[in-house]
Amino acid sequence: MGAFLFPETPTGKSSLIPHPPWHYSGEMLTVEYRTDPARVAELLPEGAELASEDPGAVAVIWADWQSAGDDLAETLDPVRSQYKEAFVVIRCEWEGETWSRCPYIWVDKDFALVRGYHQGYPKKLGDIWMTRPINVGRAGPRLEAGGRFGMTLAAADRRLAEATVTLTHQVDSPGFVNGHPMLHNRVWPAIESDGTKSMDELVTMRGYDGEVADVWAGEADIRLFESPSEELALLEPVEVIGGFYHRVGVSWKGGTTLRRN
Amino acid sequence: MGAFLFPETPTGKSSLIPHPPWHYSGEMLTVEYRTDPARVAELLPEGAELASEDPGAVAVIWADWQSAGDDLAETLDPVRSQYKEAFVVIRCEWEGETWSRCPYIWVDKDFALVRGYHQGYPKKLGDIWMTRPINVGRAGPRLEAGGRFGMTLAAADRRLAEATVTLTHQVDSPGFVNGHPMLHNRVWPAIESDGTKSMDELVTMRGYDGEVADVWAGEADIRLFESPSEELALLEPVEVIGGFYHRVGVSWKGGTTLRRN
Amino acid sequence: MGAFLFPETPTGKSSLIPHPPWHYSGEMLTVEYRTDPARVAELLPEGAELASEDPGAVAVIWADWQSAGDDLAETLDPVRSQYKEAFVVIRCEWEGETWSRCPYIWVDKDFALVRGYHQGYPKKLGDIWMTRPINVGRAGPRLEAGGRFGMTLAAADRRLAEATVTLTHQVDSPGFVNGHPMLHNRVWPAIESDGTKSMDELVTMRGYDGEVADVWAGEADIRLFESPSEELALLEPVEVIGGFYHRVGVSWKGGTTLRRN
Amino acid sequence: MGAFLFPETPTGKSSLIPHPPWHYSGEMLTVEYRTDPARVAELLPEGAELASEDPGAVAVIWADWQSAGDDLAETLDPVRSQYKEAFVVIRCEWEGETWSRCPYIWVDKDFALVRGYHQGYPKKLGDIWMTRPINVGRAGPRLEAGGRFGMTLAAADRRLAEATVTLTHQVDSPGFVNGHPMLHNRVWPAIESDGTKSMDELVTMRGYDGEVADVWAGEADIRLFESPSEELALLEPVEVIGGFYHRVGVSWKGGTTLRRN
Repeated sequence: MGAFLFPETPTGKSSLIPHPPWHYSGEMLTVEYRTDPARVAELLPEGAELASEDPGAVAVIWADWQSAGDDLAETLDPVRSQYKEAFVVIRCEWEGETWSRCPYIWVDKDFALVRGYHQGYPKKLGDIWMTRPINVGRAGPRLEAGGRFGMTLAAADRRLAEATVTLTHQVDSPGFVNGHPMLHNRVWPAIESDGTKSMDELVTMRGYDGEVADVWAGEADIRLFESPSEELALLEPVEVIGGFYHRVGVSWKGGTTLRRN
Repeated sequence: MGAFLFPETPTGKSSLIPHPPWHYSGEMLTVEYRTDPARVAELLPEGAELASEDPGAVAVIWADWQSAGDDLAETLDPVRSQYKEAFVVIRCEWEGETWSRCPYIWVDKDFALVRGYHQGYPKKLGDIWMTRPINVGRAGPRLEAGGRFGMTLAAADRRLAEATVTLTHQVDSPGFVNGHPMLHNRVWPAIESDGTKSMDELVTMRGYDGEVADVWAGEADIRLFESPSEELALLEPVEVIGGFYHRVGVSWKGGTTLRRN
Repeated sequence: MGAFLFPETPTGKSSLIPHPPWHYSGEMLTVEYRTDPARVAELLPEGAELASEDPGAVAVIWADWQSAGDDLAETLDPVRSQYKEAFVVIRCEWEGETWSRCPYIWVDKDFALVRGYHQGYPKKLGDIWMTRPINVGRAGPRLEAGGRFGMTLAAADRRLAEATVTLTHQVDSPGFVNGHPMLHNRVWPAIESDGTKSMDELVTMRGYDGEVADVWAGEADIRLFESPSEELALLEPVEVIGGFYHRVGVSWKGGTTLRRN
Repeated sequence: MGAFLFPETPTGKSSLIPHPPWHYSGEMLTVEYRTDPARVAELLPEGAELASEDPGAVAVIWADWQSAGDDLAETLDPVRSQYKEAFVVIRCEWEGETWSRCPYIWVDKDFALVRGYHQGYPKKLGDIWMTRPINVGRAGPRLEAGGRFGMTLAAADRRLAEATVTLTHQVDSPGFVNGHPMLHNRVWPAIESDGTKSMDELVTMRGYDGEVADVWAGEADIRLFESPSEELALLEPVEVIGGFYHRVGVSWKGGTTLRRN
């Protein structure tokens, strides 16, 4: 059926990403906090408004993934399967519903970067680190009350964010900010580079066959740092809501174009 | 004037790439060779045909760049300015003219990856190395007859290509394969991932204010290796044409959309 | 108490590694196989002999670690705590006892590299990948019969080894090759670089407070590849013995110098 | 003649570094400044004293190298030849002579790291970037008055130093701080890790067949940043002396042990 994406060849073998569905299994560490709602508002798509409840809520999420195409071949060549990412989620209202939205995201592999572009995630490359839970030895936290995790993000040789989560109790759900269908823009300028767009879409997407396990809530802190090529630090934390650890499995096979400009 | 690209913010400061024009200065090592023309034909855009002369000609080019937006700010923060890339160029005929075309390319920074997507280059991340000329000491070649350079390309922890160029004499032009306007596709599937396209363009582009210096020709060899996610090795070298070293400066401010499907 | 290692400063804060004890928690994937015993013999220290039983046995082990000094501070800044390594273990007899010995090892962080030098491991930098077990979703194996893991090693942009392990049943112990105290050389040439040594020791070491969990045995395969700067491929697999997955926790506070030349 | 260093094999092919001599060609950017002499004094070896003239002088030097063993083989496989480093040089007096000394250094390849340990350089891994001069195009400085270069250093995902040099005029010599024979410690703790040393040497070394070219002086600035595992920022700049660009070629075949403890 040919290549799903570039480079395009008769076999499709070279394609940077295979045809969906794509399958993901990983673990996540989340910090939810409140910032000035004006900082959230300026990152919303045209026509969307702040969420009526908790409009300044932000989630910063670190994720350590394995992913693969439908034949799962990449799972045995993990350099092509494993990646880490750190991303920001905010919420908004549009056409009477509440949506989640990712305004900033950093990832450490090309296939994940470009898969993100397909889904409307504005990915950059970054260095992402997150403590892993252990069940033997001393070099890390257990999945139990008091277990403490650290997370960091850097890009272009500068640290952009640091956070910790200290587990307190098991819960059913890892936070509320990243809980809605995503509302993303997919925009590509025309090669004329004169302000016209070749693609300008508002889209939505969500996974299927989602499962979570080992969901813990806890206390959290987070610090954001300046960079000459980033604006993450504008989302300054005013009040931490909480932190979460969980494992997640999900598949993805497509989204829906809501609007084409 | 807002962001040129994602992530989109009011200031545009976060944009992965700034508004054009973009300026480039670097050095290149090129190997030109002939492969089976059928291998070239299968990488051409719909409607294009093999070049009538030397239809199996291929150039593999290694480049070590500094690049910057119009204020040249990145040149003082070189982690955001320097990158290396290795790419394949073939030729074709379309609408009565001869074009160059890049079917495969690997690069080592995100801003260069995505700038390439804007221009129709099908970039992946890779590790690119190329010998640099020296004028003192012994650890490298001089820009003189007998100076010998090595170039390598790897992706996903596998070596994909190795080459050498040994300089013989100065020339005016660094090869003929990469000498025409580029004929590129810019294609993005719809998020529905059902075979429909949100963007499907045939475009052309070339730089302006191009300058070359220190152009040398020489003898060359090249070896291509298999990978489960690449097809570069299908472009098997049958006969080496030659090799080149040169320095190049160029600027870029936009291209032309030739066809929209 | 000053720096444990260079760079040496009054506070010791800059030291590349902190004072022991050091604590480790991680997971390992092991392939055990038989090679030509002559290839093992040539990697033994002076005075040691091949093991009388199964003299050509080799283990290649992939490990994904978190480690920390005694205050465990690095576990919250995981860029300074997490690393991966792949290493070869052989066995020998010396002074009437059986020893394990690591002739080749690759690791991806500087603190782990140099900590290895202290312990007599001949570490180089490499890129190490290993599939992780999952408990939700589809992108990876479960810790159950049939769960299949892939492991790869690369250095200097060349793939050096690939292996897989497919779990069959739980066991008590993850193999026999890496089960003895280590017999290592610690050798440093004099700066005169004239063949004299400033340090030439035969040492032994092993951890304490070791724990294992989730120990599985399985079927395995392994492929080793040539490189101009490596000899790993000389340890050519003749017959695979088996494969293992396990989690491990261990601490380390010092070893014993057996001989000084 | 066997391996120069580990891993030790009969052929020596695997050795992380080949037998000397080693040859180097590269380019350097230097910032010289004055700090509180007390900060310099605490980094001197036992028995050494501050330089009587300009005791608080510090050089921070960025270097982009090609290096190779005596057969120059690595120059054609540049992943094994090219590396960048950033290092601090201070001066001292010992036994009636003036010496240069490197208390901190970061480098981006393993062979350079370990070659440094042989020479007494306390190397860590880091990310090093420095602007390169150009002779065509706009994306960088020319080697002429007004040419402006940027240099950065990061380790463990944190930026440690940033500097710029703006060329003003050609000179004969690129600064005075790094102009003396090096006075280095080579220290390795015993594996007992009980405070005893297996190696504790004061050594000196310098290259031979040194050549410089394209030496320029200029104006400079430098900023140092905090890190939980570094003390570079203690060498706080009080007054900038100046900056330099130059190309350098040099060979190295051994040093001299001055004292063994």
